Amino acid sequence: MSDIYRASTTAPVNIAVIKYWGKRDPKLNLPTNSSLSVTLSQADLRTHTTASCSASYPKEDTLLLNGTPQDVSGARTQACFRELRALRTQLEGSDSSVPKLATLPLKIVSENNFPTAAGLASSAAGFAALVRAIANLYKLPSSPTDLSRIARQGSGSACRSLFGGYVGWEQGSASDGSDSVAFQVAPASHWPTMRAVILVVSAAKKGVSSTTGMQTTVATSSLFASRASETVPRRMAEMQKAIQEKDFEAFGKVTMMDSNSFHATCLDTYPPIFYLNDVSRAAIKVVESINAAAGRIVAAYTFDAGPNAVVYYLEENEKDVAGLFKSILEEKDGWKGARGEKIEAQGAAFEKVKEEAGVAVELLKEGVSRVILTGVGEGPVETEESLIDEKGEAVSS
Amino acid sequence: MSDIYRASTTAPVNIAVIKYWGKRDPKLNLPTNSSLSVTLSQADLRTHTTASCSASYPKEDTLLLNGTPQDVSGARTQACFRELRALRTQLEGSDSSVPKLATLPLKIVSENNFPTAAGLASSAAGFAALVRAIANLYKLPSSPTDLSRIARQGSGSACRSLFGGYVGWEQGSASDGSDSVAFQVAPASHWPTMRAVILVVSAAKKGVSSTTGMQTTVATSSLFASRASETVPRRMAEMQKAIQEKDFEAFGKVTMMDSNSFHATCLDTYPPIFYLNDVSRAAIKVVESINAAAGRIVAAYTFDAGPNAVVYYLEENEKDVAGLFKSILEEKDGWKGARGEKIEAQGAAFEKVKEEAGVAVELLKEGVSRVILTGVGEGPVETEESLIDEKGEAVSS
Repeated sequence: MSDIYRASTTAPVNIAVIKYWGKRDPKLNLPTNSSLSVTLSQADLRTHTTASCSASYPKEDTLLLNGTPQDVSGARTQACFRELRALRTQLEGSDSSVPKLATLPLKIVSENNFPTAAGLASSAAGFAALVRAIANLYKLPSSPTDLSRIARQGSGSACRSLFGGYVGWEQGSASDGSDSVAFQVAPASHWPTMRAVILVVSAAKKGVSSTTGMQTTVATSSLFASRASETVPRRMAEMQKAIQEKDFEAFGKVTMMDSNSFHATCLDTYPPIFYLNDVSRAAIKVVESINAAAGRIVAAYTFDAGPNAVVYYLEENEKDVAGLFKSILEEKDGWKGARGEKIEAQGAAFEKVKEEAGVAVELLKEGVSRVILTGVGEGPVETEESLIDEKGEAVSS
Repeated sequence: MSDIYRASTTAPVNIAVIKYWGKRDPKLNLPTNSSLSVTLSQADLRTHTTASCSASYPKEDTLLLNGTPQDVSGARTQACFRELRALRTQLEGSDSSVPKLATLPLKIVSENNFPTAAGLASSAAGFAALVRAIANLYKLPSSPTDLSRIARQGSGSACRSLFGGYVGWEQGSASDGSDSVAFQVAPASHWPTMRAVILVVSAAKKGVSSTTGMQTTVATSSLFASRASETVPRRMAEMQKAIQEKDFEAFGKVTMMDSNSFHATCLDTYPPIFYLNDVSRAAIKVVESINAAAGRIVAAYTFDAGPNAVVYYLEENEKDVAGLFKSILEEKDGWKGARGEKIEAQGAAFEKVKEEAGVAVELLKEGVSRVILTGVGEGPVETEESLIDEKGEAVSS
């Protein structure tokens, strides 16, 4: 019987504070502007992936996600496989003692620890884990930067999930995408008190896919060009400075403005794209009330290509931010566990917000299905926990 | 007893297809970009105003609107009074036989034929009627262009209600506002088949006022500058061409894109301004379905600073557009009268739209409180019907 080679990793979700929207090269996933995100803790949200190869496997590469076989014939997955195999082939060529794995069929098994129905962009964690796991399997000497270049071709924002902490993605200018890579602005340890509460909004159905949406925006929005060429470059600099200086007010203001700018270009698309709904607007309103009550910015909302609100805040303001949302949404899933239970619901502050934003409070109660409490976290972590057993069979974690 | 001088007019509402948003001079109401609107029929929506003056009146100028005394001490109303009195004074100075009215107290009585609760921008019709009525009272030889310069100082968009048909407002460049005036792109008779159905959306409360909102946009939106300097000038030219050529597809596309562009800059404002809600988005979705069913643009939505949808269409497509909305909203107020009753509800087409946009159809049913059927119409009309009797007392029309 042939050897079964295996390697496993977990990889994090990241939520951008300067948004990626628009490709200058759709095939290579090269963006029209740089972006920046916070990597979220894998204790709360992560993809766990085992990559394996063996001469004994059926000839076709396979990928099982949450127990369901996935199509791997798409150009994006194929690009990742091809690039990783090319690096392994190089390694094999330079040292004849290295086993020949590059040509063996790949069997990949992947699991998310969060409900996929939540509509959280899972493709970033998914492709980061896929690329990291195969790189581990192939024992590639590649740096996270090198791997980010590969993961980017699977899903643009996946490149940022190769790093922990505060992560930028440089748009680059080379036509082959060689300089369009992720970089760490600061590790999680530089500013470890960054927290996030995610309000998962029950949407009737998924809106326009981001791949289709962003290309329609580039083609039809008359406001988009100035976002890409002027607004984002300025905000990338402001955001990096805010992170270096741990200045939450600057971080929060740029985060909110950039989310609004991104959704504004969606609305300026023809036909218009709407990801925010009345529940999302209610979340914005409540964040504005929280900040008004605090007399400064202690909470910052951001929205990806969907109605879910991600609200960043610092641990020291947990009572004012997460506590306030707990007062409104106490009955929803997500407050269980050590992290949620220690958060106190806010009595007096809640009364004030209800006065100012009563309609918004009611809309949130109606429209939020669950909350997720998390915070800044580390990049991919290699793990011994394998989703494929020594006989090459998928097992459940 | 002193003479009672009286003159009356009606003036129309106008709904812009290229939006006015942003002042380069808030005091003179000078806009940051040109705009263009359709004047709507006064049979459906109009302000009726009688201006009167007499030495027998109490010393203070007064204004009664729908039976309620209004404050006339505001800078905008005062600017209109001052400019009109100056023109009358000139007239009196040039011919000593002309009665001295300029110094007499003004009594103005005004009535709208539409529910003010509907949230339709009534200030445009209001200031146009006020200025036109006083100009009639003073027998000023001023052209509509001259009067538009005065009405603009009362409410920016009021300048466009001095003309019927298709009306532009040239932003101008002079610092005194002398070249910031309305002009007729085409009379109603050039393209008389333009119709509109207004979907009045029940809003919880009025959002940010447009005066405050537009100045916050100018100050904080990073996308606004390119709208004002590039997008609108190009669309002004496209829209004038579409009107000259009676090209509804071009008219409709630019109308929808410009509405979206305007609301995008509102969303890009900090803090963000939202006028569209989920019911507004449902109206957009249904218009998209109507156009998809027709295989071309036969309906075009536009939204002012509020959630109400104004949907333009041509009479020849009444069945496909107004008929479809009647199928959805048959139980709402607004379909009575000759105009509404002859519109056939659409069976087969309705089923198709329900399939494609079922959620939107339900949202419209829930959120629209009434419809108003109207179309392109004439400018202000002098009338003998006076809201002030020969003794100088207000009467109801």
